[in-house]
Amino acid sequence: MTSESQPSSRDRLVGATVRLLRKQGYAASGVSEIARTGHAPMGSFYHYFPDGKEQLAAAAIDAGAAEYAALIERALTGGGTLPEQLSRVAKLTARALQRSGFELGCPVATTALETITTSDTLQDRAAGAFAQWQGIICQRCIDEGVSASQASELAMNVIALIEGAELLARVRRSVDPLDAAENAIRLMATTVLPNATQ
Amino acid sequence: MTSESQPSSRDRLVGATVRLLRKQGYAASGVSEIARTGHAPMGSFYHYFPDGKEQLAAAAIDAGAAEYAALIERALTGGGTLPEQLSRVAKLTARALQRSGFELGCPVATTALETITTSDTLQDRAAGAFAQWQGIICQRCIDEGVSASQASELAMNVIALIEGAELLARVRRSVDPLDAAENAIRLMATTVLPNATQ
Repeated sequence: MTSESQPSSRDRLVGATVRLLRKQGYAASGVSEIARTGHAPMGSFYHYFPDGKEQLAAAAIDAGAAEYAALIERALTGGGTLPEQLSRVAKLTARALQRSGFELGCPVATTALETITTSDTLQDRAAGAFAQWQGIICQRCIDEGVSASQASELAMNVIALIEGAELLARVRRSVDPLDAAENAIRLMATTVLPNATQ
Repeated sequence: MTSESQPSSRDRLVGATVRLLRKQGYAASGVSEIARTGHAPMGSFYHYFPDGKEQLAAAAIDAGAAEYAALIERALTGGGTLPEQLSRVAKLTARALQRSGFELGCPVATTALETITTSDTLQDRAAGAFAQWQGIICQRCIDEGVSASQASELAMNVIALIEGAELLARVRRSVDPLDAAENAIRLMATTVLPNATQ
């Protein structure tokens, strides 16, 4: 095995943090649990993240945001019309959630909600994650001829609806809320298309 | 002052917990901070909530859910058409959030997300809260002639969209996401009305 095929201690710490933030959020995830989950010695935590847990969580939000951005890209390049592509974001989110037994949710939402008043660093990263996801969707809509202001609003509504539907889905342990979101996204996207008859 | 005008220690503990869950969620809210915030002695915490913080948080979710149910009722009884009434839920949510300087969010969402895998008690209370809110909206739609299945799906989408928009709004410190949600709710509600031309 080459060294590239073995994740480094740093990568294992970030990966473990992504999982724990998705499962239970920031406050409940102590650094010793993170190190244990990532099979990394505490020394590498102090080495790679000298500023502490907040610095590690910031890196984990970035990594988790990139993973979800890739899911959005997959949904949008999977063929079909714009409404089909956008509603597929909800569908792929539902599948991933179900595969994890409803355990692994959004890598950003819980931590963002917990740290509204306590961490500007994590709020900035969370805002960056949402902006990244919305930006991908917004650009796809503009490419289909949707006006910039409508594209921006639609992208915001798609991300908001999926975030909220994922919350309801996890609590109910059912993908019904994400199925409902899929229908709503299809409707919203159909309405803003330049050739919409509605 | 009569004794009724003074909240009891129990009520002060529950009220303080509602505020802390809205601000920062469950794990970050220790019982000593709760007692201090509620100006209640630790003895009353042990007296009223012998099963500990989870029991207090369950009571707080119920109390917070009832407060938000009252906001929904106000939105739905404020006159206008069904689309106007439903979109008003987002408007009133935005106003309340802005009044608190984006500090006080949903009394259920953060705690629900934190405890997906760790507390059946809190998950049950969270599911009950969402079901209560959706039930009020669903019934209002049925009263307007919307079919039961469409009313149920619309109610789920309204609550999901407001939850997600509130998350984005708090992170951005801007009510724009809730304004966008207001427009989307108006569209969704217009589409399911029996006399909709779309």
